[in-house]
Amino acid sequence: MVPGPAASELGQRSPFAEIRRESYGISSGTPLEDLNGTITPADLHFERHHGGVAMIDPDRYTLTIHGMVDRPLVLTLDELKQFPAETRTCFIECSGNFRRNLPEETPPRQFIGLTSQSEWTGVPLSVLFQEAGARPEATWFLAEGGDSSRMARSIPMEKAWDDGMVAWAQNGEAVRPENGYPARLLLPGWEGNTCVKWLRRLELSDRPWMTRWETARYTVAFDDGRARQFMFVLDPRSVITTPAWPHTVRPGWMEIRGLAWSGHGRVARAELSFDEGATWVQADLQGPVLPKAHTRFRYLWRWDGRETTVLSRAVDEAGNVQPTIRELIEARGVGSGPYHMNPITGWRIRPDGTVLFRTERWA
Amino acid sequence: MVPGPAASELGQRSPFAEIRRESYGISSGTPLEDLNGTITPADLHFERHHGGVAMIDPDRYTLTIHGMVDRPLVLTLDELKQFPAETRTCFIECSGNFRRNLPEETPPRQFIGLTSQSEWTGVPLSVLFQEAGARPEATWFLAEGGDSSRMARSIPMEKAWDDGMVAWAQNGEAVRPENGYPARLLLPGWEGNTCVKWLRRLELSDRPWMTRWETARYTVAFDDGRARQFMFVLDPRSVITTPAWPHTVRPGWMEIRGLAWSGHGRVARAELSFDEGATWVQADLQGPVLPKAHTRFRYLWRWDGRETTVLSRAVDEAGNVQPTIRELIEARGVGSGPYHMNPITGWRIRPDGTVLFRTERWA
Repeated sequence: MVPGPAASELGQRSPFAEIRRESYGISSGTPLEDLNGTITPADLHFERHHGGVAMIDPDRYTLTIHGMVDRPLVLTLDELKQFPAETRTCFIECSGNFRRNLPEETPPRQFIGLTSQSEWTGVPLSVLFQEAGARPEATWFLAEGGDSSRMARSIPMEKAWDDGMVAWAQNGEAVRPENGYPARLLLPGWEGNTCVKWLRRLELSDRPWMTRWETARYTVAFDDGRARQFMFVLDPRSVITTPAWPHTVRPGWMEIRGLAWSGHGRVARAELSFDEGATWVQADLQGPVLPKAHTRFRYLWRWDGRETTVLSRAVDEAGNVQPTIRELIEARGVGSGPYHMNPITGWRIRPDGTVLFRTERWA
Repeated sequence: MVPGPAASELGQRSPFAEIRRESYGISSGTPLEDLNGTITPADLHFERHHGGVAMIDPDRYTLTIHGMVDRPLVLTLDELKQFPAETRTCFIECSGNFRRNLPEETPPRQFIGLTSQSEWTGVPLSVLFQEAGARPEATWFLAEGGDSSRMARSIPMEKAWDDGMVAWAQNGEAVRPENGYPARLLLPGWEGNTCVKWLRRLELSDRPWMTRWETARYTVAFDDGRARQFMFVLDPRSVITTPAWPHTVRPGWMEIRGLAWSGHGRVARAELSFDEGATWVQADLQGPVLPKAHTRFRYLWRWDGRETTVLSRAVDEAGNVQPTIRELIEARGVGSGPYHMNPITGWRIRPDGTVLFRTERWA
């Protein structure tokens, strides 16, 4: 044995434990099958951009708050950080975190990797809007990003008075560029695209703006011609991360592990089915179970070596139950858009220990 | 505006938000004054090594459990990960996280940076020791590291049955090399050196080993010739991270922010004094307040621009109160060693906005 390197200024991963996201250009998926616990390391947080990653100089950054307010504000980053802060751990999920009819050789990062969790710190919107003197007639606000696409969404004021915030720190450090440095909107439990990154402007009004992001995108079309707009809240969802393709298993005792979450509040139960959904058993939830947060579940299980399918579903404290693909198709029509799809998924374990992605066909 | 770079496989910090630890060769301190919330990014977790950073090949790694057990075990990393897991967020602090008589121009990273917090995942020691068939007469176990110093500590079995674990994941990903990859002991609330890194061997016995780490080091000598050995539990402590040298402040409203923690359990109160400890006011604690965990505190305060000293102290749920340096000297003697020093510290704010480290002299 020889002594190893001395203490450094910045740590590095073991060369034996390299880990990467799956990049698709406009987005990249968190490798959930290789993570444990509930925190996503910042450099593995999923990405989804409309005009690439904006690079903002903090000395030139401002956040403007105007519209139906008594005292319009133009805040520097330093000023933003001086407001009373709060910290909360919650997930952010892309509302398009779904792909149809994937092959069996699909890892979680590819079919559900557009969800990640951080410990966020920032200033509550309620504090900022009180400081600006929000007028009672203001019922919506526009959140506009500083990226080249000028991503902008209309948000009901209720969310600001409830738990919305402007986050400037992520897992202790400054928010990463891909996640909106120097500051992003954080609307816990709501569509990721509403958590506008590189946030530059908040405008208060008495109606929504109908931006192209809420007409051409992020609206769900149904087969009967109707469309659902301003859906916002993400419904309960779950994924089994162990076992999962491309990992394999051996007969005997193992711990089935996964994540469950809901934009409506706390996860009440994470359940597993070994008989195609006929019956469900309850997995253990790792505390503390936080609202609107990825919650780790675990279930000790003995595999007898025979072909088995295991499904997972989440039930939240509001009573919402994660649906099957069949139920989603029946409710919305087979032609409905890619948003807010939260179907039950699972794995087919073959006698040779291979673990294959198993979901119903979208047809 | 031009579109920015596409989504990547691995994120990077903003060039405007570089952050580093302070390295001293055998250790490096977390820049607490530049962090928010409670999670320490893994590459900024403090380091303290006795033989440098060991580089372990996971395919050649084993953990041996032997001694007073019915079924000695030699576990591979894969086997270790298959045991029922648990996740907990807690601090690890070096018991030597203290330096005497520092200059006024000292940032938190230099006087208290050897404490950090992660979300750890691993297998409870109780599970491993039950699997090995620990004998009732076993009252201590030895934890030995795979580094070149063969760091080893004797630990009472009670800690194994309580909350000790072997951690193989940190903030979601594999434990970093500097933190013991592929697995380390985690004894929540106990001296960092007992959380043996690169853990290779656990041996059960009916007495402690009296290793050099518990005779030449990590034992506190008192002026009267007595010494205190096997101290283990870290007492309550706190630090104000905002304001702090080298940052400056302006008159007016600001939020005083800091961290409080205790190895005895939850933080009950974090308190501030503006009159040299004569009276104390209570800061707000950011929930969830977890046991043996860094807890963020905040206090809204208006600085009138005059010279002011602000001190912080932690009180834990067991009733322990963080002491003054004077109280520590009176209890242990001026010649006592550098371990388990948790004195109240604070900052002197000068009229020009400079924030200087303020602590009583050790003399």
